[in-house]
Amino acid sequence: MNYTLSHIPERTLKPRQHGLTMVMDKGLSIRQVEDFLSNSTDYVDLVKLGWATSFVTPNLKEKLKVYKDAGVPVYFGGTLFEAFVIRNQFDDYRRLLDTYDLQYAEVSDGSIEMNQDDKCEYIRQLTGQVTVLSEVGSKDEAKIIPPYKWIQLMKAELEAGAWKIIGEAREGGTVGLFRASGEVRQGLVEEILTQIPSEKIIWEAPQKEQQVWFVKLLGANVNLGNISPAEAIPLETIRLGLRGDTFSHFLNGLGSIH
Amino acid sequence: MNYTLSHIPERTLKPRQHGLTMVMDKGLSIRQVEDFLSNSTDYVDLVKLGWATSFVTPNLKEKLKVYKDAGVPVYFGGTLFEAFVIRNQFDDYRRLLDTYDLQYAEVSDGSIEMNQDDKCEYIRQLTGQVTVLSEVGSKDEAKIIPPYKWIQLMKAELEAGAWKIIGEAREGGTVGLFRASGEVRQGLVEEILTQIPSEKIIWEAPQKEQQVWFVKLLGANVNLGNISPAEAIPLETIRLGLRGDTFSHFLNGLGSIH
Amino acid sequence: MNYTLSHIPERTLKPRQHGLTMVMDKGLSIRQVEDFLSNSTDYVDLVKLGWATSFVTPNLKEKLKVYKDAGVPVYFGGTLFEAFVIRNQFDDYRRLLDTYDLQYAEVSDGSIEMNQDDKCEYIRQLTGQVTVLSEVGSKDEAKIIPPYKWIQLMKAELEAGAWKIIGEAREGGTVGLFRASGEVRQGLVEEILTQIPSEKIIWEAPQKEQQVWFVKLLGANVNLGNISPAEAIPLETIRLGLRGDTFSHFLNGLGSIH
Repeated sequence: MNYTLSHIPERTLKPRQHGLTMVMDKGLSIRQVEDFLSNSTDYVDLVKLGWATSFVTPNLKEKLKVYKDAGVPVYFGGTLFEAFVIRNQFDDYRRLLDTYDLQYAEVSDGSIEMNQDDKCEYIRQLTGQVTVLSEVGSKDEAKIIPPYKWIQLMKAELEAGAWKIIGEAREGGTVGLFRASGEVRQGLVEEILTQIPSEKIIWEAPQKEQQVWFVKLLGANVNLGNISPAEAIPLETIRLGLRGDTFSHFLNGLGSIH
Repeated sequence: MNYTLSHIPERTLKPRQHGLTMVMDKGLSIRQVEDFLSNSTDYVDLVKLGWATSFVTPNLKEKLKVYKDAGVPVYFGGTLFEAFVIRNQFDDYRRLLDTYDLQYAEVSDGSIEMNQDDKCEYIRQLTGQVTVLSEVGSKDEAKIIPPYKWIQLMKAELEAGAWKIIGEAREGGTVGLFRASGEVRQGLVEEILTQIPSEKIIWEAPQKEQQVWFVKLLGANVNLGNISPAEAIPLETIRLGLRGDTFSHFLNGLGSIH
Repeated sequence: MNYTLSHIPERTLKPRQHGLTMVMDKGLSIRQVEDFLSNSTDYVDLVKLGWATSFVTPNLKEKLKVYKDAGVPVYFGGTLFEAFVIRNQFDDYRRLLDTYDLQYAEVSDGSIEMNQDDKCEYIRQLTGQVTVLSEVGSKDEAKIIPPYKWIQLMKAELEAGAWKIIGEAREGGTVGLFRASGEVRQGLVEEILTQIPSEKIIWEAPQKEQQVWFVKLLGANVNLGNISPAEAIPLETIRLGLRGDTFSHFLNGLGSIH
């Protein structure tokens, strides 16, 4: 840090097992990746190439190398996994992970119907090859999964070998964990937390108010995802109580605060 | 493409006559243009320097050269044309196009009142000099043009020599083709399409939901405009059915989809 | 300017005492700062490193040097001042300003309770060291300060030595001068202007509609703040009547306008 302030919450350090920030790259150019990393490497634990943007991104190998040289692991969005599965090309997908030398992969069913056993089987197979992030929640605003089902899916997917479970929100933060307005489904989150350790969940939370809500509930070291590259620094200040929204959260009655 | 997937709709290739993506640059620096082009040249057919931003953009000649070297044609936003016309400086405008060696120009009446004959006369005059894009629709949210009038204007402007007609939406996507909420004026679009070939229209559609709506209606190769530079790659995935929103659109019943 | 148009309002030139544009940098990398400045230096008078982002920004000294070399003064957001004050580290804050060789500082009470005398005393102390910008308005959406109180605070803070008063809006433009919807508190602004010269106030106005409203009310050379880097060029066109929103504002009945 550039100077010393008291009452700053302790942050986990890289390589982090929790307190993770997962950033979504939806098509940065190579120099834009360099710009982003030059500023945010310390605060970013994982980068997702959003949905199937990797299909159309030029210079993909070169781009992955920039991330690799900075020590920031990259994975392809779950929609790409689904695009291969729906086309009966799962074996191609496994080869693809090797071709691009990826260490992480996401298993999701945000756009397709997949029964729980099949999903867990995909997780088991990929676990032998990479570290698996498994996503729960639909991208369809109209498809509401009840809390007990979220919990059941999360438990099964962790048992099948998933390293972390991702709570779906999309780039916009308007489905899955959130209402169409972006408001958190508070009861859902609280019920999940009665059964699943917070450290095992990465909450997609692209909107600032969503990030603030989770930091207030779960502290500086909550795992958050779908952060846009330009928001990595702002998010770090929210975690540390250095933005208006969480300013008083870590001060324990120091002085007089709004 | 970086890998092979079945069931990907065929895209037209550059130089495209339809399936166009028109991007709005509202003040990128030269290096930002380079970054954008390094990633998106294959997916971008036209760049508009938004409204009259060219008036205040430093290093304009140098910037235009970067686009030219990449083979991406640039034109000045229609508001600039109107700014010259309202000041009785149309001849200056014609000289300006030559000074900057532009091959395209936009004729519009989004901010001024112009009768149809005058507008068509401007189109005719400019057609001798450059390729003309003609825009229909007001920037004034309160000024609703009825569908029959859109059609009449479009027909007259195509006859006067316009290469394509642009459907107005502004940078925000909240006027012209869309309601203030961003919702598509569906009846308007459908009525236009009964009379004007889709290939002749570039639909300004800055919001993702708007892009999705047009791709679902008119397919992968619909002409779309006012795309922000960072959305060129995401839009390409929407066109190809590789984002959640259009994921099932090109699959023809492959497997089980939400 | 790149070409000549009549009826362009006169803009003040740098170093400006009014007609200021204050841009918020919330974590740009060094190359991003270079990109921004290469395009916008002429239109930017002050840069604020938003809230306490300077705490976590890598290469801070190098970044400040890029701004300094371009002749653009930088100051740290008021939330950082408050973070030091609430921790009883005000002396550290004063040293910090020297360490980073800053010529400007912001005094604010957006996140903490501070009585007027204490705030004015901070202004007086800092005035001996730097040029002080003093901010009025709460970051708390629920805390509405009545107009007479805004005026009383502004007067006292100017008397205490503040160079300019900043009207609070946050990054989003949804508190202070504005309603949660972003709508201007028109009565508040008008009442303030009966007592405080417009030149002494920097209105935070991050949303385009807010910028347009102030330019229409107070002209091309109104002081505006919390502009995002990518909006510096668009704002300049709004000031000059070269965007649809202010297109007719400076034309005095030239021709026929919507």
